[in-house]
Amino acid sequence: MLRTLICGGSGYAGGELLRILSTHPEVIITGVTSEKSAGKSVTALFPGLYKYASLKYEPLRKEQILHKADLFFMALPHAESQEAVDYFYRNKKKVIDLSADYRLRDPEVYEAWYKVPHRFRSSLNKAVYGLPELYRSKIKRSRLVANPGCYPTGAILGLLPALKKRLIDGASIIIDSKSGTSGAGRKADVALSFCEVNEGFKAYAIGTHRHTPEIEQELSLISGKEIKVNFTPHLLPTDRGILSTIYSPISRKTNADEIVKAYESFYKKEPFVRVLKYGLYPNIKNVRGTNFCEIGLKLNERTNTLVIVTAIDNLVKGASGQAVHNMNIMMGFNETAGLVLPALIP
Amino acid sequence: MLRTLICGGSGYAGGELLRILSTHPEVIITGVTSEKSAGKSVTALFPGLYKYASLKYEPLRKEQILHKADLFFMALPHAESQEAVDYFYRNKKKVIDLSADYRLRDPEVYEAWYKVPHRFRSSLNKAVYGLPELYRSKIKRSRLVANPGCYPTGAILGLLPALKKRLIDGASIIIDSKSGTSGAGRKADVALSFCEVNEGFKAYAIGTHRHTPEIEQELSLISGKEIKVNFTPHLLPTDRGILSTIYSPISRKTNADEIVKAYESFYKKEPFVRVLKYGLYPNIKNVRGTNFCEIGLKLNERTNTLVIVTAIDNLVKGASGQAVHNMNIMMGFNETAGLVLPALIP
Amino acid sequence: MLRTLICGGSGYAGGELLRILSTHPEVIITGVTSEKSAGKSVTALFPGLYKYASLKYEPLRKEQILHKADLFFMALPHAESQEAVDYFYRNKKKVIDLSADYRLRDPEVYEAWYKVPHRFRSSLNKAVYGLPELYRSKIKRSRLVANPGCYPTGAILGLLPALKKRLIDGASIIIDSKSGTSGAGRKADVALSFCEVNEGFKAYAIGTHRHTPEIEQELSLISGKEIKVNFTPHLLPTDRGILSTIYSPISRKTNADEIVKAYESFYKKEPFVRVLKYGLYPNIKNVRGTNFCEIGLKLNERTNTLVIVTAIDNLVKGASGQAVHNMNIMMGFNETAGLVLPALIP
Amino acid sequence: MLRTLICGGSGYAGGELLRILSTHPEVIITGVTSEKSAGKSVTALFPGLYKYASLKYEPLRKEQILHKADLFFMALPHAESQEAVDYFYRNKKKVIDLSADYRLRDPEVYEAWYKVPHRFRSSLNKAVYGLPELYRSKIKRSRLVANPGCYPTGAILGLLPALKKRLIDGASIIIDSKSGTSGAGRKADVALSFCEVNEGFKAYAIGTHRHTPEIEQELSLISGKEIKVNFTPHLLPTDRGILSTIYSPISRKTNADEIVKAYESFYKKEPFVRVLKYGLYPNIKNVRGTNFCEIGLKLNERTNTLVIVTAIDNLVKGASGQAVHNMNIMMGFNETAGLVLPALIP
Repeated sequence: MLRTLICGGSGYAGGELLRILSTHPEVIITGVTSEKSAGKSVTALFPGLYKYASLKYEPLRKEQILHKADLFFMALPHAESQEAVDYFYRNKKKVIDLSADYRLRDPEVYEAWYKVPHRFRSSLNKAVYGLPELYRSKIKRSRLVANPGCYPTGAILGLLPALKKRLIDGASIIIDSKSGTSGAGRKADVALSFCEVNEGFKAYAIGTHRHTPEIEQELSLISGKEIKVNFTPHLLPTDRGILSTIYSPISRKTNADEIVKAYESFYKKEPFVRVLKYGLYPNIKNVRGTNFCEIGLKLNERTNTLVIVTAIDNLVKGASGQAVHNMNIMMGFNETAGLVLPALIP
Repeated sequence: MLRTLICGGSGYAGGELLRILSTHPEVIITGVTSEKSAGKSVTALFPGLYKYASLKYEPLRKEQILHKADLFFMALPHAESQEAVDYFYRNKKKVIDLSADYRLRDPEVYEAWYKVPHRFRSSLNKAVYGLPELYRSKIKRSRLVANPGCYPTGAILGLLPALKKRLIDGASIIIDSKSGTSGAGRKADVALSFCEVNEGFKAYAIGTHRHTPEIEQELSLISGKEIKVNFTPHLLPTDRGILSTIYSPISRKTNADEIVKAYESFYKKEPFVRVLKYGLYPNIKNVRGTNFCEIGLKLNERTNTLVIVTAIDNLVKGASGQAVHNMNIMMGFNETAGLVLPALIP
Repeated sequence: MLRTLICGGSGYAGGELLRILSTHPEVIITGVTSEKSAGKSVTALFPGLYKYASLKYEPLRKEQILHKADLFFMALPHAESQEAVDYFYRNKKKVIDLSADYRLRDPEVYEAWYKVPHRFRSSLNKAVYGLPELYRSKIKRSRLVANPGCYPTGAILGLLPALKKRLIDGASIIIDSKSGTSGAGRKADVALSFCEVNEGFKAYAIGTHRHTPEIEQELSLISGKEIKVNFTPHLLPTDRGILSTIYSPISRKTNADEIVKAYESFYKKEPFVRVLKYGLYPNIKNVRGTNFCEIGLKLNERTNTLVIVTAIDNLVKGASGQAVHNMNIMMGFNETAGLVLPALIP
Repeated sequence: MLRTLICGGSGYAGGELLRILSTHPEVIITGVTSEKSAGKSVTALFPGLYKYASLKYEPLRKEQILHKADLFFMALPHAESQEAVDYFYRNKKKVIDLSADYRLRDPEVYEAWYKVPHRFRSSLNKAVYGLPELYRSKIKRSRLVANPGCYPTGAILGLLPALKKRLIDGASIIIDSKSGTSGAGRKADVALSFCEVNEGFKAYAIGTHRHTPEIEQELSLISGKEIKVNFTPHLLPTDRGILSTIYSPISRKTNADEIVKAYESFYKKEPFVRVLKYGLYPNIKNVRGTNFCEIGLKLNERTNTLVIVTAIDNLVKGASGQAVHNMNIMMGFNETAGLVLPALIP
């Protein structure tokens, strides 16, 4: 059994790692850290996770926990993750970082958007962007995986086949994303309280969200030229789910059939991406609690625009499920181990 | 007191007319029709509308109700509204039609999108599109007002100043709209049941929604040339509200300050449009139950894209509130009569 | 116009006072206090309350605000309200206190449940419990009204006629209440965050909630002997509403018809209580945003138990609406002034 | 692998059986019936159940499906289930009936509450009430299990230890239950539509719900005398979950410690019942998607009342999960097979 330890296990991503790993056949959890909840049991914070009644949060003391595990899931806030990731990585451990700290290849871009410098460039150079559909073989050989952000996961998976097959050229892309509230984390904040979120809906951080450079980095790498996108996140009154509605002018004559086939063939072997029949569109409810990404496609022939809709569960495919998928790839486990649960409907 | 009658008063738009008119100082309701609910009292369908406990639904018999009122609110399904509207209009009544039947000026376009012919072209020629911010003076002189659709209201109000001030030229407009579930009407339908909608979110009718030609008609008229838009509606797990996130490339050099000023000056005298400070974005919760449209603005300078976000209550500004506003204008009442209620928060 | 001032206007009860008073024909608001939000405008906290864009929060400095108003609404937390209420009352002002501080007649009981002493017993002796259906004539003559708690309002209104008409004798009463989340106030608290409350439901403070002695005080006064109740509050994933399901053995032979008539005759002249037809039960949605209390009745003849269900909006009839009703009575205004809005449905 | 077939697989209970069985290590599904959806694939109705993309609904033709399976899950409406259950049972199959048809031992009681006669009394006599905590050894030996109703499951589990240990004597029991909307089934019904249920809460069928005789039957059997209860169901604006708040006078001197110990010892070996620490109360969210029943306890010493709160997922422990548990017991499988998933939080 692989010994794993979760750094930052009191938030929703940490809780989701615990939930998913609880049914994983190859893994044991040897520790979980939290500064604020140190001393409490996991079930005190996640009453439904009975299995971990005797697992207690401890403070993140790097030296003390180093030898407790072979693979570290890092679910700390950005900037706080940098150093610990570097430490475990340099000490020969496998590390999957769910924070943003190792996603952006260019530390200048990181600093521009996150307002803190990156102090561990050597480790950063080794990090692989953990989108299995794009970097599976690199992930397999890596010891340091930067788990993608929730919005970038849905956005990139939606655009990848169209860019690769040159159906679109990367100009004038608009990504209009809507996320469930768990995306904002587990925290005491009036703006996240039930009475403020419920029956409401709003956009935020238009054009300035930190996932923008991450999306642009990967789209640019895919298409071999610099791509800039309009990215607008919105807050949905749901627990989970990200639906991204993506618009791009088509760059050559095509038709619905060619587009669907391009997507189907691109994702044919992927265990967690499902291309819907033309005319069907995904619903976040259908992927709730799962590691799936559903993709719906529409060619608007009146405007020569390709509309792509993707749905993921932000805490699973957008965070902890993808992290477990990355672990499975890194370790040579069955790729779907721990990730076979169907959606909870209703 | 103006005698009004509501044709089609058992759905959400009808109920909302009853709610709003119940506090209107110049109006009495002399009748309300419904085929299915004929014989039932209004409070049987809307238990909170105690005021109408003795008002009973009756079948729509045109000849019998003609003389009961001076102004008819028509809240029938599209296609069913055509004839009755024509009848009351030809018989010298004032008519405000909440259906789609008199919104599209070109009957060929109507037939193409609604799959039924328009059989009352003479009346159609007389109809005024009832967006007060655009056609106030025509509404004032009209006896037949086609009340705008819910999506078009939010979309057009968002684009109007930018088109008028030539900040944008009408090319490549994307309107990504999200509507509360009441927009789908009050009906028995598994797809609208709580367990299907709750915790879900999806796009539908991408590029094919019937509000598309209505939006395009008005934007084209405003800008003096044919405009085509990408319009995508989505279904929100909320009772009410439409948030539209609108994207357009800017067509000349501008800046945030100029844009906000253009919007503020354009809507300066409008009682029901509020332009938010730059950097603030609307939330459907803040306009719930009200006739207000809130507008937020963002110039994305990285992509030279203007992002406009508008929020309305689909049943008020997007339907029944706007209908009452139109009535106020037609009758010379105080424009805000019956429409002064602040939002229900939370 | 009556000059009123709201002490503690940044929470939901304060916001609701502002909402309701904004349409009141006899009242102006001359000030609103908040320590934390001092200097901000009301619309910064309640974006939908456009009318108060120029009204700014100020700190509660008693001497400085004393002469700004003739009637003070006190929406401070319990214990914090005591002194300010006493001050304004002693200085000849009218005071309506929405906190719990002046509701319990016996200061020992207050101290036992609220864990702070009552330091203003002379003012306490003058306070009238502001349930209009019970104390209308006293309220009319009073300058100090203790506005009832949200749970007690629904519970007492449900039991009052049955106790008065000796259908039940006060023994073995069970009050099972379910409240929307706004009842917990507007605050930063993980337990109140959307993701914790949504899709959840739980009981809390079983047998220990502070509204228990308030309910018992009034039921005991009504029935002329000491009554103890089982009271269990629950947290609903809704913004608003309290539904109380109340059980009591009947104390003499009766039938459905007699029970309904007893309730109808008792509340016949009450503008804000509606007794439903036998077999119909209230829904919190039907009173949302209104000052109404709806009552449904069921005699379970298999168990000789009377089941009473009441529904109110906790922020209106359970707080700010009832406060305005009390003001209307104290001032001799039309009792329903400002309170005529029908429910927002859906 | 055990061959199982689901009769009535298009509703929520059927869908939940499919979801749960999809991860069960000992079972294959060889068929699923639905009259209305015959010919459609399972994923057409439950888009998230990808695994069953090639499994198609067929009409329930008893003779044709008899040999396709060894165990039949019957998820038909009550009254419709009687005959098919009898048929499969008489033909030597194992049957687990999720309808109400074989739960009530006395066919007169069945007829009185369900308004149809029971025509298969011989099979009825063989049926075992499938509450494992009460009838495990009988279930083990049975070929016909009547799976308990959702409300009875939560109610009986809450009262069982207190009755068995004579803490209460069965008099004056009140069961106030609140259920998520999936309990009403998957159907086209205005009253179940999102806009009617959302932000609402109501009681229904007070004292007349058909689960009443089922609860009374089992409580009476447990305590050896006739017990009548007050049972009130309510409709929660959530997808899933039943919280039952149960009140009973205590029948002898006791204390919190004794009560908790009584419950803990009673359920010590049960894999799916969790007794919470005194002072903690369950939340339906913590059992969502799981087969667990959580129990919270409170002795109200002011009123000598025991308050018991139980939480289950109505579709899992209240229906399909319990059915799978029963199958595991009947077949000698590991009791928790297929049922180990932790709650989806948030």
